[in-house]
Amino acid sequence: MARAASSSSRLTVKGRATRARIVDVAARLMYENGAANTSLEDVRKAAKASGSQMSHYFADKRSLIRAVIAHQADAVMADHHDPAVGNLDSVAALRAWAQRIVEQQRAQNFEGGCRLGSLAAELVESDAELQADFAAGFERWESLLRRGLLTMQQRGDLRPDADPDALAYSLLAAAQGGYLLTQAHRDARALEASLGAAIDHIELLAIDASERSPGSRDQSEIG
Amino acid sequence: MARAASSSSRLTVKGRATRARIVDVAARLMYENGAANTSLEDVRKAAKASGSQMSHYFADKRSLIRAVIAHQADAVMADHHDPAVGNLDSVAALRAWAQRIVEQQRAQNFEGGCRLGSLAAELVESDAELQADFAAGFERWESLLRRGLLTMQQRGDLRPDADPDALAYSLLAAAQGGYLLTQAHRDARALEASLGAAIDHIELLAIDASERSPGSRDQSEIG
Repeated sequence: MARAASSSSRLTVKGRATRARIVDVAARLMYENGAANTSLEDVRKAAKASGSQMSHYFADKRSLIRAVIAHQADAVMADHHDPAVGNLDSVAALRAWAQRIVEQQRAQNFEGGCRLGSLAAELVESDAELQADFAAGFERWESLLRRGLLTMQQRGDLRPDADPDALAYSLLAAAQGGYLLTQAHRDARALEASLGAAIDHIELLAIDASERSPGSRDQSEIG
Repeated sequence: MARAASSSSRLTVKGRATRARIVDVAARLMYENGAANTSLEDVRKAAKASGSQMSHYFADKRSLIRAVIAHQADAVMADHHDPAVGNLDSVAALRAWAQRIVEQQRAQNFEGGCRLGSLAAELVESDAELQADFAAGFERWESLLRRGLLTMQQRGDLRPDADPDALAYSLLAAAQGGYLLTQAHRDARALEASLGAAIDHIELLAIDASERSPGSRDQSEIG
């Protein structure tokens, strides 16, 4: 992904816009039809680009795919800039995050799954470089989740023995597995249940107000 | 899947063996290379079948894919016939189940992911019939997990307000999401963490011996 970003940064403003349009169209087509069913020619036509523009920006389909992986990882990150989701550093923010994921899937009739995950599932075994691109994309997402959990822990809202690394993996895996099951079942249940359980688990590991200040016993989730 | 089964049951013993060999080879090739990169001719050659045998058993690639989905769902079910995993009706059995999944992936260098899930991720959006085949395959797996959880609940080992349906989804989603992340990262952490968190959550919802018989306070997981 570093290579794609640096080659993009050497372009003119107009060149960057053309390249971005091609990547955007490629991402949409690959999401809708799969990468295997999306040719460079399909992308060229839909992006209204010339053959020389295509070959100028992308030496081959594989380099376009790499740009699409980076694009989808960016899109996932951008999706988290939502006031309700905030810094994912509370159980309420995590619930808002989960609800947002479920609503996005509902809005598209539970078709297509995750923009990054569905592409990863199709292409992760293609070669080591693509696999590393997907790992980097997921890592950005995991670190967003991990940061929120670390903040909770540093603030004293999460038990000291809770493992933010493992919990971040479990949140993202719940999302990815939930996406796939919900694509198969065409309903929200699996996605809601998997995200719900992963967040319930964090809530059980959370230190509620009653434990920290024994005076105000409003709600005790456990025991 | 019902159709594939019934057409298979009308065959002679030799015919069934030939058909099973073709499906077995197709499943392996599709798992290794993806369904898009596996042609009927690839399967025919690798299965040492004739063209007339291929067309006798499978009208087209799609009908072979449907047979492969059923085959992989059967393989997943067969994989659960392990004494350690038993009926998945205890936290210990679930831990053994998770460990088995992690070990299987480690043995194949974290490549390939789930036999059923990776095929689903590639093909679930192809058409409504394949999507229903995948839903049926996952449903068999979910119901295995659900049955274990229901047994725990009926035995009094799981809190009455725990939802076995939702927990079964969350276990399978943890596995599926964990498979994908672990393919991208090429290490066990995501799969171990996601399955671990899903089972930890069930353990927190479990009623331990100390709660049921206050006399024997051996271990108290919560509070």
